[in-house]
Amino acid sequence: MELWFTEKQTPYLGLSCAVKGVLYSCRTAFQELAILETSQFGRMLVLDGMVQTTIFDEYIYHEMIAHVPLVTHPRPRQVLVIGGGDGGTVREVVKHQRVEKVTLVEIDREVVEASRRFLPELSSALDSPKVELICTDGLQYVKNKHAVYDVIIVDSTEPVGAAVGLFKKEFYADVYTALRDDGILVAQTESPFYNQQLLKSAYHNINSLFPRVHLYLANIPTYPSGLWSFTIGSKKYDPLNPLPPEERLTVNRYYTLGVHRASFSLPPFISRLLEA
Amino acid sequence: MELWFTEKQTPYLGLSCAVKGVLYSCRTAFQELAILETSQFGRMLVLDGMVQTTIFDEYIYHEMIAHVPLVTHPRPRQVLVIGGGDGGTVREVVKHQRVEKVTLVEIDREVVEASRRFLPELSSALDSPKVELICTDGLQYVKNKHAVYDVIIVDSTEPVGAAVGLFKKEFYADVYTALRDDGILVAQTESPFYNQQLLKSAYHNINSLFPRVHLYLANIPTYPSGLWSFTIGSKKYDPLNPLPPEERLTVNRYYTLGVHRASFSLPPFISRLLEA
Repeated sequence: MELWFTEKQTPYLGLSCAVKGVLYSCRTAFQELAILETSQFGRMLVLDGMVQTTIFDEYIYHEMIAHVPLVTHPRPRQVLVIGGGDGGTVREVVKHQRVEKVTLVEIDREVVEASRRFLPELSSALDSPKVELICTDGLQYVKNKHAVYDVIIVDSTEPVGAAVGLFKKEFYADVYTALRDDGILVAQTESPFYNQQLLKSAYHNINSLFPRVHLYLANIPTYPSGLWSFTIGSKKYDPLNPLPPEERLTVNRYYTLGVHRASFSLPPFISRLLEA
Repeated sequence: MELWFTEKQTPYLGLSCAVKGVLYSCRTAFQELAILETSQFGRMLVLDGMVQTTIFDEYIYHEMIAHVPLVTHPRPRQVLVIGGGDGGTVREVVKHQRVEKVTLVEIDREVVEASRRFLPELSSALDSPKVELICTDGLQYVKNKHAVYDVIIVDSTEPVGAAVGLFKKEFYADVYTALRDDGILVAQTESPFYNQQLLKSAYHNINSLFPRVHLYLANIPTYPSGLWSFTIGSKKYDPLNPLPPEERLTVNRYYTLGVHRASFSLPPFISRLLEA
């Protein structure tokens, strides 16, 4: 039997992967979760039918969401990650020796458990002494925190279900308050080709709160269109003039200082979208 | 009835597009040709089951394959385009006022005819007085040409059928000879994720002939992985230090001087591949 998994990336577009086996699937309190063994991408985490991460290309997303803000901030000691229960972002964050503590707030404990069991490459750093794992709603967690964090990373799913609020202005305002006065927010903000309204709205929401806002890009073949955007809001530091990264980061597969700078060079079809 | 077209991008991966209609299809002397009207991408040219170009994102490929070499070369007067019978590359080339003549060598006249009928956005410049269209095999055409062209653009299909030879060293050697002593070659060299051996081989072949060789990247959602590579071989000019482009190029949707420079910033997973 040939088994294929298809993600309907849009109503008119599907990405189909040959599947060697379904390693695990369940209905959690929040979503449908599956771990697939695919022929092209190795193990794959699927939530509500949407590809979240694969062994093949997870490093690109995780390096870019973590290192861009952490290299921009000269002293990132306290870091909050909202979402990202697979552990991939945390794995990259703890590579920064100046980071003293990472708080990972994931709404769905079963994502963490599945990742521990089936995606050890991603979840390996969850047991680091620097990491505190809290399974609760990030929207609630970030409320009434004042000047606690240097960097907040919003590693959300697509804006459906529990993640809808993670793209709204009220949430970004709470994040702003939870950051120190030189803090940095970064959020994944979907495909510049297929999610233009969402991207524009998230960008304008962050822009209305933070003195500096920039979009940057990364190539992620398993995400719709293969091009992904991240939006960074910074109270003080300029992400276009990052510090040289710590030695350790030279082992990356995607991130370099050159790639960091290049990722902010937007094609006009994207920069015009943000101006409009 | 719901009609879907699926390109098997690899044996284990398919991209599927909802199709409103098949506008045209035929078996030419060289390949199977179809023009589809898709819901996501508008009209699409398909050759041998592989997406060649779509109205949605064709500008990215065509701007990047044309402007990077033409902005690098200070006096690009004579340009040869091999392949690219849809006319999209030629459309971008003739935007450069310094270009006096473009020779388009396409092996399959039916690609040109189908593009004239169904893809006027791409084929519009084929009637420019600067353009000479020759329907013949590019491999043969380029043989025994000596120091004729300033820029040669290899706008090939995937390396199957007639296009296999367009990735080989013998062909690149003929291209080298056909270029003037400050000439530039650029070739599309497939996905850095899924076609690594081909990319590496094309790069090394070009590197063994030209004093300067560089890879650059563009985001093309309808091509496998969404990330595409181009390899540039230059006898003299440095593509990393391009001239400011002519005024006219400011109307682009993807290419800018900033995007040009950023497109040469390679993630380590690609640069290590080229070193190996």
